[in-house]
Order: sequence, then structure tokens, then C-alpha cells
Amino acid sequence: MLPYHNLIVIDKQNQIPVYRQITNRLISLIREGLIPPGTFFPGTRQMAEFITVNRKTIINAYEELMTEDWIEPVDRKGYRVTPELPVIKPRSFQPPNSFSSPDNITSRNLALQAALQPEHRLTKSSDIVVNDGFPDAELAPFNEISKVYRDKATSARIKQLMCLRDHGGLPLLKEGTALFLNETRGLNIRKDDLLITRGAQMAIYLAATVLLNKGDHVVVTEPNYRYADEIIENTGARISKIGIDNEGPNLDQLEHILKKSPVKMLYIVPHLHHPTTITMSVGRRRRLLQLIEQYGFYVIEDDYGYDFHYTNNPILPLASAPHGGKIIYIGSFTKLLAPSIRVGYMITTPDIVKKATDLKRLIDLRGDTFIEFMLAQMIINGDLVRHINRSNKLYARRCDFICDLLIKKLSHAVEFTRPLGGMAVWLRFKQQYPVNKIIKDAAHAGLCMIGMSFRLPGNPNDNGIRFGFASLSEEEISKAIDILVRLTS
Amino acid sequence: MLPYHNLIVIDKQNQIPVYRQITNRLISLIREGLIPPGTFFPGTRQMAEFITVNRKTIINAYEELMTEDWIEPVDRKGYRVTPELPVIKPRSFQPPNSFSSPDNITSRNLALQAALQPEHRLTKSSDIVVNDGFPDAELAPFNEISKVYRDKATSARIKQLMCLRDHGGLPLLKEGTALFLNETRGLNIRKDDLLITRGAQMAIYLAATVLLNKGDHVVVTEPNYRYADEIIENTGARISKIGIDNEGPNLDQLEHILKKSPVKMLYIVPHLHHPTTITMSVGRRRRLLQLIEQYGFYVIEDDYGYDFHYTNNPILPLASAPHGGKIIYIGSFTKLLAPSIRVGYMITTPDIVKKATDLKRLIDLRGDTFIEFMLAQMIINGDLVRHINRSNKLYARRCDFICDLLIKKLSHAVEFTRPLGGMAVWLRFKQQYPVNKIIKDAAHAGLCMIGMSFRLPGNPNDNGIRFGFASLSEEEISKAIDILVRLTS
Repeated sequence: MLPYHNLIVIDKQNQIPVYRQITNRLISLIREGLIPPGTFFPGTRQMAEFITVNRKTIINAYEELMTEDWIEPVDRKGYRVTPELPVIKPRSFQPPNSFSSPDNITSRNLALQAALQPEHRLTKSSDIVVNDGFPDAELAPFNEISKVYRDKATSARIKQLMCLRDHGGLPLLKEGTALFLNETRGLNIRKDDLLITRGAQMAIYLAATVLLNKGDHVVVTEPNYRYADEIIENTGARISKIGIDNEGPNLDQLEHILKKSPVKMLYIVPHLHHPTTITMSVGRRRRLLQLIEQYGFYVIEDDYGYDFHYTNNPILPLASAPHGGKIIYIGSFTKLLAPSIRVGYMITTPDIVKKATDLKRLIDLRGDTFIEFMLAQMIINGDLVRHINRSNKLYARRCDFICDLLIKKLSHAVEFTRPLGGMAVWLRFKQQYPVNKIIKDAAHAGLCMIGMSFRLPGNPNDNGIRFGFASLSEEEISKAIDILVRLTS
Repeated sequence: MLPYHNLIVIDKQNQIPVYRQITNRLISLIREGLIPPGTFFPGTRQMAEFITVNRKTIINAYEELMTEDWIEPVDRKGYRVTPELPVIKPRSFQPPNSFSSPDNITSRNLALQAALQPEHRLTKSSDIVVNDGFPDAELAPFNEISKVYRDKATSARIKQLMCLRDHGGLPLLKEGTALFLNETRGLNIRKDDLLITRGAQMAIYLAATVLLNKGDHVVVTEPNYRYADEIIENTGARISKIGIDNEGPNLDQLEHILKKSPVKMLYIVPHLHHPTTITMSVGRRRRLLQLIEQYGFYVIEDDYGYDFHYTNNPILPLASAPHGGKIIYIGSFTKLLAPSIRVGYMITTPDIVKKATDLKRLIDLRGDTFIEFMLAQMIINGDLVRHINRSNKLYARRCDFICDLLIKKLSHAVEFTRPLGGMAVWLRFKQQYPVNKIIKDAAHAGLCMIGMSFRLPGNPNDNGIRFGFASLSEEEISKAIDILVRLTS
């Protein structure tokens, strides 16, 4: 008889039910060959005594093993390990394969341990993580999602919706998004003028990929949302850069470029520009609309920041003005909710909506039906607007808190403009503090800054990093600033 | 008169222009109700004195407030706060926009009703929807997802994970997926040999987009998973087609093509081919590996069907044999769980993993942290394997049920091969029943067939449709077959 009391150790703290722990362990032992095929198991009563658990638990475990064909009952003799083991026994036709890492294959148990160990973590849990400007997950509607999954799982309608061909998002969410945008942004659209995407990111990818060809000329600001640059480069287009000042993109430079050579597209972030948090003035917007009319180029208006103004009213999107179909308007619910809830949208003319929808289906057959349903509900019952207002109040307080601290404690090392909204401060370090070095030193000191950073020689926005404060408590903000103070004194 | 000198404090250090600081502050005071609608403002001169700024600054501030409709001029009496203040009133700078549908803007209430009305539905709830071969949502781990959202929402670790830069999926899930594949498929990989995607679909997109250039030559079977063809066309590659018989792709035809001109890539579905459900024989696999070695082309091995064999043991993937890094192995958890849980994976060499990971980040910044976490847990505690076994038992019963019915009742109209696994039958209608017409007539009779259908003149797999049975009860299957019987008699 095997020393089952040694081989099977129960962890009562573990969330996995005891009978299943036993099942798992027995399967491992069979797999590892410690319990060979054909071996008889102890009777349920005896096994229960060996490992001091209730007999019922053993019965459950054995039943599970039978269901999975690991063991089989033998008349009056109890249970034995199936002589021919099934399940994981694919028909082999060739020896080992040709990927990169054939040296040490981790056994299930080793890997399982590793996966659950703290050293597996990418950052220490004691670290303060300062992100690029994400919402506070404490406010996120995770309970609502949990509820939708619980309550709607048996809904025949949801089951149907999950299987239908996706036409750019759940129809209910497309409808809700059109409503939300019409009410908040002075747009005048219906659900078929838009498609739902995985965050603004996918919308930018789809718009650029549908509209741009190799060699096309695209203008962006410098600095710019880096992943937008990469998307444009990925299409094979070439990029020209214009500056950005406190009123927004430098349109003199844009016009200069337009006069010299045709431009296919401009990518801008008019509210709370990424990374600098600058909002484009009304004057610049008017002039840009004139330039669009005059030169006829496309504009991706990435307006992810529209909903996040604390005190000031946001300026209506460029897309709310007449633009001859040249503006592709992009936004995101992700920034309103949580980084993992990836839902964005793109508003444009029917032909581009169609092309983008077709491309989206090739990339990602459909979205998450439950999340899209939950979000549509939030819009319709007004929860989304309430959520935005609540978030903005909290973020405004945190913004004041961090800006006051920065002025008080860090003026010797950084410059910044108090943002009018949003979730991040654009922190420009003085030249004697190279931002790369600050990031590295901070990481050693327990401050993990993962916001986008830029070093652009000769650019006034050189040597900066986005410091996301919205998801940090005042205590965490204080600690983070104190670390930066130590590193710069 | 309000104590404006106390209420409005100017910060001269602030980069926001003074006039705008005043504007902002006044808007706040109006919003908070401290300056009620209808209140008259002090004249510009007087206000300038109150808060000790230049009169021109006040004029600018008032003008801005007027532009935004916060205040209005009243003849000879100065400016007063607009009596009817809106709630959300972003600053407009232009009249209506230029998208497609300016005619009737739906009011919130109308749209809300529409969204909740049954007529808004795409199909009637009484309809039987026969899909392409999706899992039964009754078995899906929606409760587990609900639990993860409920229990982990407050977990600091999850919050950190949500914000970190994504490197092709949650590390824990990458680890779990490597384990799962090594145990079930005779692979020998580690977590860095793979990336997590939104279903197999995104994996195919990434692989094709990373590897193919315009003009490249790609071979596929006919018929083929249609979205794979579209992805390949989208890269600008040209496609050659080879036939498929009961042993899999016609490799004589492939070799003929290879001899004539270089081939960059082959796309195949070796288990339960889409749409035909044919599984490639061991002999064909051996020969294909020889051809890969001889001609050196890439192969996308789309093995979405590997886990779904009822009775037969599946044949190990081509990728488990030595292939010199030429095989990109793709699979999906979506097919194991539910259409809305979009998680797949791609296994390939480090350089392609890197390129695909970078491209994925541009398309879709990160996956759903909660779903990925839940799935990793399911793998580690053995739930996933149990789920697969349980599902296969149920699907095998349903498969027997539908195949027996088809033979008994529909032999006059259809031919099919009893599938060895999976979730769909490939139903080939006889020529007198064009599949397009059957689909249309069935829809009128309450049977909505949304599986992929093909009419390929001259091809033995002509005039077929995938009939997904896995998500249907026996009652629904009976009803569906009865409708088809009526339509063909």
C-alpha cells in the first residue's frame, strides 16, 4: 500500500474544495507514474482514515476520477487505476518539436507553485505603481459586471446575441453610445454612424489601416501618443511632426507642410493631449477646420479626454462642426471605467464605418457580449454620467492635492501645468534630472513609474513623464512625491 | 452684491491665462448655485476693480462666458446669468456636423424605448438559432467569471496587473497555457514561446500580418475558413487553392504548386477542418512535414478543434514534430467556453512572438485581466480539463442524436459525414436544394441558420452549411430537422 497519508496533503486554507484537491493530487500521482495503471485504490473508508477526511469527501473524489476515466470500478474489489489511460494520450506521430525552449520543461507542480508564489510577481506589492493616467479601479463597475454575468448567464437573449455575426458591436450599445455622444458632444449621429472597438486603441488602428497606404503622408504632434505613431508607421505611411504649445498643435507649421506636399491625414488629441495634457483652443480649432476645408485631408480626432474636465466646460469636438466627412472621431469608455474594460468607439462616414467593421471582424470576431450589455445599461439608466461626475470630483481633489505638493516640494526639479482635467500630470524634469535615470532610481526606491516618458532633445516638452494620479490615494501620492524629492536633492 | 473679491482668486503663477481662470471660477460659482440664474454681474469696470485685474481681462472673460451661453447681455443693464441653464453644455464653436444621418435625431426617451422593445431584436426569441458550431453557453463558466469580478475587484494585485504594459497576455495565463498545451499536445514550450490573443481569430490575423507582404503566395484549402481567406487577402497576398478529401488537404496539388512557384505560407485546419470537419490523417501529416522541410514555407496550423474529439484520440499537432520553426500553432479557449470569452493563443519562434506581441499591443492594448485570471485558475486547478471532458460527453450525445435523425429523416436531401468530434455537422444539400434558398426559407419558418455556408460549383463540398448542434437541446434539434424536412419534401 502506498503511503497515501504522505502523498496527499490537504490545504484547508486553499479555496479549492478538499475533494478536488484529492482528485488533483491523485491524478498527478497517476501521471507521474507513482500510482501505476491497474493499481487498486484503498476503499473509500480506508482512504478517508489515511488522510483524515470525511468518507463522503473520498466518495466525491473517486466519483470525479471515474467520470474522467482515471479509475474504474471492479466488481467487489473496489476501484483501480484504468489500465489504459485515456484523456491525455494523443496519438503521436513524431518526436519533439521545434520551438525555442526545449531544455527544461516545467512539471505541473513546479509551475503551479511558481504561478502562486510572490516572486512570480512583476512588481512588489509594496511598490507604488504610478501609471499613465488610468481611472481608479475602486470606482470601476466590477460589481455591475459581476451581476450581469450572474443574472444574464441564463438569458436566452444574451446567448443568441453571443452567437450572431458581429456588426461593429452590440446593437444596444451602439444605440446607447450614439445617445451618449449626442447628449454630451453636440454630435448628431445614429447608431450606424459608429462602431464599437476594443478601446480607442483599436479604433485608431482600424482608422489608420483602412485609410492609409504605404507612402502616404501623415502629420502628428511632437511629442505624441506613442502608440499612434507606431500604428501610422506600421501602415507604411511617412510621418511629419509639428510642435505643440499651450493652445494646441502648431498650425503654422501644419500649413507650411500642407503648402509643400499633400497630406493624407492628421492625428490629434484635442482634449488633454497625450502626453502633455494641453487642450486645443477654440481659435486653433476654427483655423484647423478651415485648413481641412481648404486642403481636404483626413483628421483622426482622438478625443479620449473629453469627459474629464473638472471645472471648465470642454470644447465641443471638431467633429461636431461641418467637416465634409473628413474627421474620424474616436473615444473610449475604458478611460471612464477601468483599464481592463476595453470598449471604445469610432464615428465616421458610412463607407469607412463599413470598411472598419469588416476589418475589425477579421481581427476580433466579436466583443464581450456581457461587458457591452452592461455598458449599454449604464448609459441608458444614467449610471455612466453619474459615474463620470463622481470620478471627476474625486480626480479633481487628487489633482489639487498632487499639484500643491509638487509646487511645495518639487519645484526645484520639475515644471508642470496644472491640468484642467484628466488623470495625469505631465511632469517635466529639469535637464539635470534625465527622466530615464529618475525612472530607474525610483524603481529601486519602490516607486514604479510606468507612464509614457519622452526625451526629445531641443523640444520644450523634452524630459517629461506622465504621472497618473487618478488611481492613487493621497497617501500614495505623498509617498511617491517624497521618493522623487529624495532622488532630486 | 456678492463678495467677488473673495470668491475669485487669481493665481498669477498659473499658466492658465487670467481671463480663463476668471471664466472657470465664475462657471463653477454658477454651477454650484452661488450665483443663481438671472443674477446680474457687476459691470466690467467694477468687476475689474473688485478683483484687481485689467478691465480688458474682464471683457475677455465675459465674452467667453457669452460664447458659451453662461451669461447674456441685457440692454443697458449689463450681463446676467442665463435664466435657463443646461446641465451639460459644452462650448460650441460651430453649427451641426457632417456625418451621415442628420435627419431625425432620436430623443433619449424614444431611443431608450426602442432599445428595450422586442422589435429591436435581430431574431425572434422563438426562433431556433443554429450557429456555426459554438459551445453550449449553459456549460460556460459565467458564474466563475462573476465570482472573479466580485472577489478580485478589491485585489491590489489585479489592479496592478490591469495597468502594467501587456506583453502578450497575463503572465499567469501564459504559464498556464504552456502547461495545458504541453500536457495535452506533446508540445514542449514555455510561457515565452506564446502570446495570448482575442481568440484564434486575432492570432491568425497577427500571424498573417506579421509574415505576409503584398504579392506573397499563400495556399489554402477550398472550401476554407472564410475569415482566414479574408485575412490573407487583406495582406495583399495572392491565394492558391487546393482541394480537401477525407484524409485532409490534397498534398499532390500542393506539391504541384510548390514545384511551379515559391509559396510563402500554407494555412490549414488539421483537426475538424472548417467547414468540412475533416481531420487530417497521420500519413498526410508526415508528408506535409517532409514538404515543409523540402520547400521551407510557413504553415499556420489552426488547431481550434484539437480538444474536441469524442471517442478517437486526437492526433498530435504538426507543431509537436520538428519543423524548423516553420509552423505557427494557433488555438482557442473560446471554443471551449463561450463565444463571448475571446481568448486564444499563438505558439511560434521568439522573433515572431515578439513581432506579433508588438502588433497586438497596437491593435488592442491589453486583454481582459479578469477573464485571463479566471482562465489561468481554471487551468491550474484542473477545471478546464474537467470542463472539456464534461462538454465532450454532452456534445457526443447530441452529435449521435442529430446524426441519427438526419439519417432517418433527411437522407433524401442531405449528405454528411458523422464527425468524430466538435460542435457542428457539415451538411451538404443535394443539388436540387440550393443552400441559399434553404437558409432563406428556413428563416421564414423560424429556423435561423447562421453557420458558414458555401456554394462552390464543381466542388464536392459544394452546397453545404455548418450546422452547429452543440448549443442545442435535443428538442431544438428535432424541431430544426422537422423544419428542414418540410422544406425539402
